[in-house]
Amino acid sequence: MNQVIDLLKKHRSIRKFKDEQLDQDTIRELVTAAQAASTSSYVQAYSILGVTDPDKKAALREISTQPYVEHNGHLFVFLMDYNRHVELSKEKGTPIDYDKTEQLIVGTVDATLAAQNLAVAAESMGLGMCYIGSLRNDMARVIEILELPKGVAPLFGMVVGRPDQEGSQKERLPFEAVYHENTYTPVAEVKDAIDSYDARISAYYKERSGGKRDDSWSDQVIGMLGKKQRLDVDQVLKGQGFLGQ
Amino acid sequence: MNQVIDLLKKHRSIRKFKDEQLDQDTIRELVTAAQAASTSSYVQAYSILGVTDPDKKAALREISTQPYVEHNGHLFVFLMDYNRHVELSKEKGTPIDYDKTEQLIVGTVDATLAAQNLAVAAESMGLGMCYIGSLRNDMARVIEILELPKGVAPLFGMVVGRPDQEGSQKERLPFEAVYHENTYTPVAEVKDAIDSYDARISAYYKERSGGKRDDSWSDQVIGMLGKKQRLDVDQVLKGQGFLGQ
Repeated sequence: MNQVIDLLKKHRSIRKFKDEQLDQDTIRELVTAAQAASTSSYVQAYSILGVTDPDKKAALREISTQPYVEHNGHLFVFLMDYNRHVELSKEKGTPIDYDKTEQLIVGTVDATLAAQNLAVAAESMGLGMCYIGSLRNDMARVIEILELPKGVAPLFGMVVGRPDQEGSQKERLPFEAVYHENTYTPVAEVKDAIDSYDARISAYYKERSGGKRDDSWSDQVIGMLGKKQRLDVDQVLKGQGFLGQ
Repeated sequence: MNQVIDLLKKHRSIRKFKDEQLDQDTIRELVTAAQAASTSSYVQAYSILGVTDPDKKAALREISTQPYVEHNGHLFVFLMDYNRHVELSKEKGTPIDYDKTEQLIVGTVDATLAAQNLAVAAESMGLGMCYIGSLRNDMARVIEILELPKGVAPLFGMVVGRPDQEGSQKERLPFEAVYHENTYTPVAEVKDAIDSYDARISAYYKERSGGKRDDSWSDQVIGMLGKKQRLDVDQVLKGQGFLGQ
């Protein structure tokens, strides 16, 4: 195993940071590493927005409910972005569309490729990070706070900073449950491996919580997917010009 | 700059590989690195499918039109995957939904985070890689070839292998056009930087093509976005149970 793979495998989300702001050189280095990731057909359908304004950070924390959205070394918000393409196309007189599901996928993939490079770059510097999917608790309000124009939508945030906790690593699904060869392996065929995994996760929670919690991975994610949440995401994206008829 | 950031910044897509197949240990190491990436609320809404069957590779090449989809060290297909959650939820008697835009975003983000870790891991081993978005040229046919059940959809592929070309690196958008602070910077304010970038990309193509081609970044991506392509993606995803009303 080489050092890079070692770094990737050691990833753990950090949710408490020292009060030490990233400097401009570090931010530029991280964004440059992010930009070096692949992009669908060179389209670069994303932007990265750094939030330093204390009022905006407090407002975003309220949406997310997580204190580390306010207290961190830097808060990045990853935006799917076709606004620049639309503006440039007006000048050239060639109208473009971004209102199909294909462009939603391209924008989400492009933003996420860049984000994961930024995450790896941050960890390689000894910084910690955590994704903030909970900005989608109120996407409309995030758009308002960050004054995002049409063609732009916030997908998730990422906090980065000097760790003030160790973080812990949660075991992933067994290899054979995630990796298939040539055809899709039905869940029934890997059910035993998932059951053992569930038992290990349940034991992990039990130990960490001193017996207060012992849900398995299945319990946890099925409970989460059972909640009807973020039902407004579709309408908010339509308001920004995505997913039109 | 550390070694990891150096690796990220040196990324270039490789589209020609030596005829040398990845062994099982390498595949397992790459998938394990992929799985170590963050996942939305621990949901792990993705699978990775390796394709080694020559007939299937030939069929996927036909969809993509790219010869390297057939000739490579290994072909991975990244799947958004709620099938396992649905199957497990049946057993528990707690029905779950994955038919909202939120779950499409979660699945796409999860698959892409894993994919980019796999890409970085591969490059750290001295392997080359290229994303294959062109599998979305005919998503329905990919589903058929790989026998994907409901709740699963192929987002993109990735070819990995021993490089048989140098590849070239295409300059990214200027930092100030991609990175915003506190509010979104309107395109008009970074138009000069984008114009200079466009001129550099045009010169790059002109030199590389011996004068046959001199389109700028704007020309290229606006032309691409102007084409109405992959209009079936929405219907195919609906057929797999995504994006219901």
